[in-house]
Amino acid sequence: MTRWKITIEYDGTPYVGWQCQASGLSVQGVLESALEKFAGQNLRITAAGRTDAGVHAWGQVGHFDLDKVRSADDVRDGLNYYLRPHPIVVLAAEEVAPDFHARLSAIERRYRYRILNRRPPVGIEANRVWHVPYALDSDAMHEAAQVLVGTHDFTSFRASECQAKSPIKTLDAFTVSRLGQEVELTVRARSFLHHQVRNMVGTLALVGRGKWSAADVRTALEAKSRAAGGPTAPPDGLYFLDVRYA
Amino acid sequence: MTRWKITIEYDGTPYVGWQCQASGLSVQGVLESALEKFAGQNLRITAAGRTDAGVHAWGQVGHFDLDKVRSADDVRDGLNYYLRPHPIVVLAAEEVAPDFHARLSAIERRYRYRILNRRPPVGIEANRVWHVPYALDSDAMHEAAQVLVGTHDFTSFRASECQAKSPIKTLDAFTVSRLGQEVELTVRARSFLHHQVRNMVGTLALVGRGKWSAADVRTALEAKSRAAGGPTAPPDGLYFLDVRYA
Repeated sequence: MTRWKITIEYDGTPYVGWQCQASGLSVQGVLESALEKFAGQNLRITAAGRTDAGVHAWGQVGHFDLDKVRSADDVRDGLNYYLRPHPIVVLAAEEVAPDFHARLSAIERRYRYRILNRRPPVGIEANRVWHVPYALDSDAMHEAAQVLVGTHDFTSFRASECQAKSPIKTLDAFTVSRLGQEVELTVRARSFLHHQVRNMVGTLALVGRGKWSAADVRTALEAKSRAAGGPTAPPDGLYFLDVRYA
Repeated sequence: MTRWKITIEYDGTPYVGWQCQASGLSVQGVLESALEKFAGQNLRITAAGRTDAGVHAWGQVGHFDLDKVRSADDVRDGLNYYLRPHPIVVLAAEEVAPDFHARLSAIERRYRYRILNRRPPVGIEANRVWHVPYALDSDAMHEAAQVLVGTHDFTSFRASECQAKSPIKTLDAFTVSRLGQEVELTVRARSFLHHQVRNMVGTLALVGRGKWSAADVRTALEAKSRAAGGPTAPPDGLYFLDVRYA
């Protein structure tokens, strides 16, 4: 038996999210069905992060165990063959040690959030960005984001359905920068709470609009209450970028 | 009566192309229908370039004449309101002189072509790039592209249905560069023949793959026969970038 690590890109728009659900097609379900066709085994794929409906991934990571010996090219190309025409693609496959775990072995995850910041609506980038029609001050957003960096109780930015035992997380970096009409946020941590990135982005958008200051973000963080945090940004702009392992 | 110039972004995937056709929905048709709802007039919109089915635009330009006095913000926002939920967006509207003509007054057009150059198929960028799974040498493509710069008879890169009186065009610049997994081509000219950009891209891909040399591109150009040119690259990767006026 061999444990395989795969790196996965997907457009989250047509799916109910990573995780299998009765209500519709999931990324996990589509991948497991391709894996069954490829390997002739009914296998479970475990992911580094369970992305929500509409959230995209440039570098999700999953693992599973195969009975038969296969080459890395075979695993990647075979899965991609059976994944068609879904917008889910295996970018790389590699054999890993039997104790590798896509979620538990991860030491760092990065997410990116893209805001299209202009008055006209979204055209080419539909479902790929959050459209914010009022002017955002990305420098003020960057400054306020630094309030969130470090080890904190993130209860104010945690979804009520979040199942994590502790609300304490450590953000290693959080940057906000403008690229023309786009405001791009990148955040890095060992792990995140449910909706944490989208709740932080929704809050920083209040700062960008001039409704909140960095001090207001600190007050919200210290309140340790979801009601004190800003609104949840839509899934469209969120991308699971990559995962680092020891 | 006021002549208006509008700058338009669109995802070309769902349309038969710019021009109205009996066979399906066109960008022009959708825009003219929004304009009719906005202005209460049945008006014709003339574009800088008639893009083909599946071709996108970041900065198409059109013109039309309005009877009523309107502000530029009104024209832009009013058209965008009636364009929903189409992935067609008016980025800007401005009053221009009555002799302004979106097509005839243009002195320069720029197109970009995006190739996703990797073995795994397209995921997030479906319909937005041409997927080329074999390795492309972008430096060799750039060198060969320089053969096409200047004034030439482009018969070898012209669609058989092309209606232009003369096959002679002047390319002002043609650059090819690699950005990670992507090969990006940008070409600039006063005007282009039908399918000229896609036929040139398809030919340069032969060079990138090592099947053709820059000398082969010159031979194809000098043959002045479509049969001597390379294949037509798909519309997915093509973007009408912008137009310059005197």
